[in-house]
Amino acid sequence: MGQIQQKLQIIPLGGMGEIGKNMTVIRFGDDIIVIDCGLMFPEDDMLGIDLVIPDITYLLDNQELIKAIVLTHGHEDHIGALPYVLKQLNVPVYGTRLTLGILEGKLKESNVPITNLIPVKAGDEIQIGIFKVGFIHVSHSIADSVALAIETPLGMIVHTGDFKFDQTPVDGKVTDFHKLAQLGDQGVLVLLADSTNAEHPGYTLSEKSVGITFDENYSNAHGRIIIASFSSNIHRIQQAIDTAYKYKRKVTILGRSMINVVTIASELGYLMIPEGILIDIDEMKNYPPSDIVIITTGSQGESMSSLTRMAMSDHRKVDIIPNDTIIISATPIPGNEKMVSRTVDYLLRQGAEVIYEKTSGAHVSGHASQEELKLMFNLIRPKFFIPVHGQFRHLVKHSKLAQELGMPKENIFIADNGHVLEFSPEKSGIVGKVPAGIVLVDGLGVGDVGNIVLRDRRQLSQEGILIVVMTIDKESGSVLDGPDIVSRGFVYVRESEQLMDEAKIKVRQTLEKCELNNVTEWAMIKSNVRDTLSKYLYEKTRRRPMILPIIMEV
Amino acid sequence: MGQIQQKLQIIPLGGMGEIGKNMTVIRFGDDIIVIDCGLMFPEDDMLGIDLVIPDITYLLDNQELIKAIVLTHGHEDHIGALPYVLKQLNVPVYGTRLTLGILEGKLKESNVPITNLIPVKAGDEIQIGIFKVGFIHVSHSIADSVALAIETPLGMIVHTGDFKFDQTPVDGKVTDFHKLAQLGDQGVLVLLADSTNAEHPGYTLSEKSVGITFDENYSNAHGRIIIASFSSNIHRIQQAIDTAYKYKRKVTILGRSMINVVTIASELGYLMIPEGILIDIDEMKNYPPSDIVIITTGSQGESMSSLTRMAMSDHRKVDIIPNDTIIISATPIPGNEKMVSRTVDYLLRQGAEVIYEKTSGAHVSGHASQEELKLMFNLIRPKFFIPVHGQFRHLVKHSKLAQELGMPKENIFIADNGHVLEFSPEKSGIVGKVPAGIVLVDGLGVGDVGNIVLRDRRQLSQEGILIVVMTIDKESGSVLDGPDIVSRGFVYVRESEQLMDEAKIKVRQTLEKCELNNVTEWAMIKSNVRDTLSKYLYEKTRRRPMILPIIMEV
Repeated sequence: MGQIQQKLQIIPLGGMGEIGKNMTVIRFGDDIIVIDCGLMFPEDDMLGIDLVIPDITYLLDNQELIKAIVLTHGHEDHIGALPYVLKQLNVPVYGTRLTLGILEGKLKESNVPITNLIPVKAGDEIQIGIFKVGFIHVSHSIADSVALAIETPLGMIVHTGDFKFDQTPVDGKVTDFHKLAQLGDQGVLVLLADSTNAEHPGYTLSEKSVGITFDENYSNAHGRIIIASFSSNIHRIQQAIDTAYKYKRKVTILGRSMINVVTIASELGYLMIPEGILIDIDEMKNYPPSDIVIITTGSQGESMSSLTRMAMSDHRKVDIIPNDTIIISATPIPGNEKMVSRTVDYLLRQGAEVIYEKTSGAHVSGHASQEELKLMFNLIRPKFFIPVHGQFRHLVKHSKLAQELGMPKENIFIADNGHVLEFSPEKSGIVGKVPAGIVLVDGLGVGDVGNIVLRDRRQLSQEGILIVVMTIDKESGSVLDGPDIVSRGFVYVRESEQLMDEAKIKVRQTLEKCELNNVTEWAMIKSNVRDTLSKYLYEKTRRRPMILPIIMEV
Repeated sequence: MGQIQQKLQIIPLGGMGEIGKNMTVIRFGDDIIVIDCGLMFPEDDMLGIDLVIPDITYLLDNQELIKAIVLTHGHEDHIGALPYVLKQLNVPVYGTRLTLGILEGKLKESNVPITNLIPVKAGDEIQIGIFKVGFIHVSHSIADSVALAIETPLGMIVHTGDFKFDQTPVDGKVTDFHKLAQLGDQGVLVLLADSTNAEHPGYTLSEKSVGITFDENYSNAHGRIIIASFSSNIHRIQQAIDTAYKYKRKVTILGRSMINVVTIASELGYLMIPEGILIDIDEMKNYPPSDIVIITTGSQGESMSSLTRMAMSDHRKVDIIPNDTIIISATPIPGNEKMVSRTVDYLLRQGAEVIYEKTSGAHVSGHASQEELKLMFNLIRPKFFIPVHGQFRHLVKHSKLAQELGMPKENIFIADNGHVLEFSPEKSGIVGKVPAGIVLVDGLGVGDVGNIVLRDRRQLSQEGILIVVMTIDKESGSVLDGPDIVSRGFVYVRESEQLMDEAKIKVRQTLEKCELNNVTEWAMIKSNVRDTLSKYLYEKTRRRPMILPIIMEV
């Protein structure tokens, strides 16, 4: 119990310089709490990877110190790594009811036993180890989101979670300005705040503005209405349903995750569904198209989603028909632009009306824009500031906003994942680094795909593979069968017979040369074959496929 | 010489339902001219493909009828397929001087003999076969762009090429409104018009507005200024140089394509470079940073480009230093958003000031927005309208704009590549289809990579490959060596020894079962091995690598 343990440490393990896998460690002495535990979707060059979770080496090394994981809300980038992390860490998890409801579904799917989930509600203050954690209601694109006020022996930490200041939220519950103001009055040591929209000037529009757009779209529609959105955006779904009720339309919910979330949210009372408005997909045929609303997944053009399947005429039960009005109530997440664009094209080709443009009003962000970020900053008036949740450019922008408001630059820390930020009465700043990084999940494998496998996948994806097999006599070293060449992903062999024949000749010549020069070591033979073939193929095709010589011995 | 040949046909071979590989055939009787011959950059799922060109089967089948290829401007999506197409077709190519200058460079690089390039200038009218082709000056993001007025026995066709109505162009030459108005007065049968920006309301800003932004940026900069832009945007480069002259800075040009285009454009007089302003990269050290402007490639975050290399500290001669001001004078082409974003992050991490936001004014589009498209339409007042150059949604939007202006829907044709649009005094419309599609270029291979190879690359990229090799006795059918399993891109083998050992046991069991059941046919043995292994690996890993059994025989 040395001196170091009297210091307050904040250690981001994810969400710094990236959008996703948000996770932050708060440590004082021998007490740790962890804020959020999210996943990230793979980068384009992480071929075949399903998702990315934070490296939790630091947590495993300090397991016995962890008092709890505290969740701000139920989005994947805040809770999605828990099915993996809870297999390794047995700690209590605090969250609001909807957050835990969504988490439970995920844990069940992954066969993780559900123990130790502790529900809280906005307004609660709970002692967790040495920390007193207050939960503060904030608006966001998922219901039941909270910011955290964490009282430590050295001062108050405020973590905003994801938030916006919606003045007319759908459920009438505004972000708890009063509590935030009160915290600012009492004095806050460190503010950690959401930087996702730090590049957006002005204010983010109210979620209610989407309801107004829905109303216009519904009143103009002559046939079915199909709305694609994020399943977690309960208030969006609520507005789609409310508008259906107003226009006397029935509602069908499609898509696995949409059905899951609607079920959980209505069970928990976050979604109010008018009696009798929901109908099953098979009942749709009993109603004219003008009496139907379909709420579905697929707003990101995901290949397996319901909307994409409909667009490609590949859905089991729903075909797009002319007169359908399709509302894509989302903007593409960076990287998904082309998939969404393709979906829109296919829908239009089927004769549907498609509402998708940014200017259509069918989507608003869940994150605070610049003026809201400034408001949060001015309410909290922290001594130190750590912008979180964003790529480096978002963090830089957020830091500049704080400086515009008079924050000295030296009191702002733009940290990397793993940086140890230490706060003590004497001195504050980045004092070190703990292990942090990415763990790749591919199917059932967690961490078994690393850089070497990815490098191979990249080469295979670009140029394919050539396998050269030969059977060699153990005694004489002479070739008994082969060399045979098999290729995949390189050229269409039927149309490149000459190339493949010549390649085989090149290999045979190389083998002869090896024999002549008494090269008998397999590694050397293989290396010679690889070099000759690689050079030959590059000359002929300007491609560098992976070349894999295999020697069998009898 | 039947009746059919008296009809006018318009056949798009590219650019319909896609951004790129623009190419349109105009045919009357036995006379064909081809407008543009562009390439397209590969879609995300075209793994390893360098570029995509149009299928020109129709042109090869009608070779002797082709009087010329006529170019509207020198962008890749309008001329980029010529190095491939001119290897197969020997026809004259008409274009303005800058367009042909850029084309010549490309032909040289590809070792295509340069013959039959015929320079024209805006204002020219040239008889080509039965057609009289007029070249009309238009503003676009490359200098020397033209629209085409094609006089045919059945009426006038106007093809806009890519255009915008810039009221204050950098070179002072406005789009030839007068000629367009005159054509409209005389009567136009068919208008084909650029749809790229059909979703953008209002007007596209003048190129000159970027110059004003440059001026502000230069006057605020304390260190070097680095501007990344498209090399073909001569007027952008002109403004960067002019502003450098005003602020007494020297200019270094970096990046292969930037150097090429600047050389050609200044030789041809399209770029005016003040005496003594250009310095070599190695001379930069003789000047303080505040006297330097670097104009470079890399505005799309391309991995091999100069700016990206600088960002990654991987450039041979230029390191980013704090106080550098980097202006990314372009917006990301759809699909490049993440690469640009990553470049910005790396530049910021090196302490540079980076100007990249849409709202920064450092870029304007080269394509007409909605009000300009309406103006073009109202000037030309065509009888029939074919929106071109755009994804399906752009074509639909452009068609709706035309309908708003009073065009009857039945006079608008949204065509696919290959559709034959026929116009005759009696009847006009889509009458058939000719071969059209994509040809993939991979290294030196043109068309040797097709769906099967791509499908293999996709599977390899996602899950890797397992190769199972065994040597079998020709006589007895018993296994002499193996089975050996080699994998690439599947799992990190050193950490998955148990999995690989068990896989080998599974294969051995399968072989024994085959022997027991007198299965001796190789195809059957291979298929059994593949099935068993695939099932086993999916169970253990939820992955489906490609499995390639190879049997050697001695």
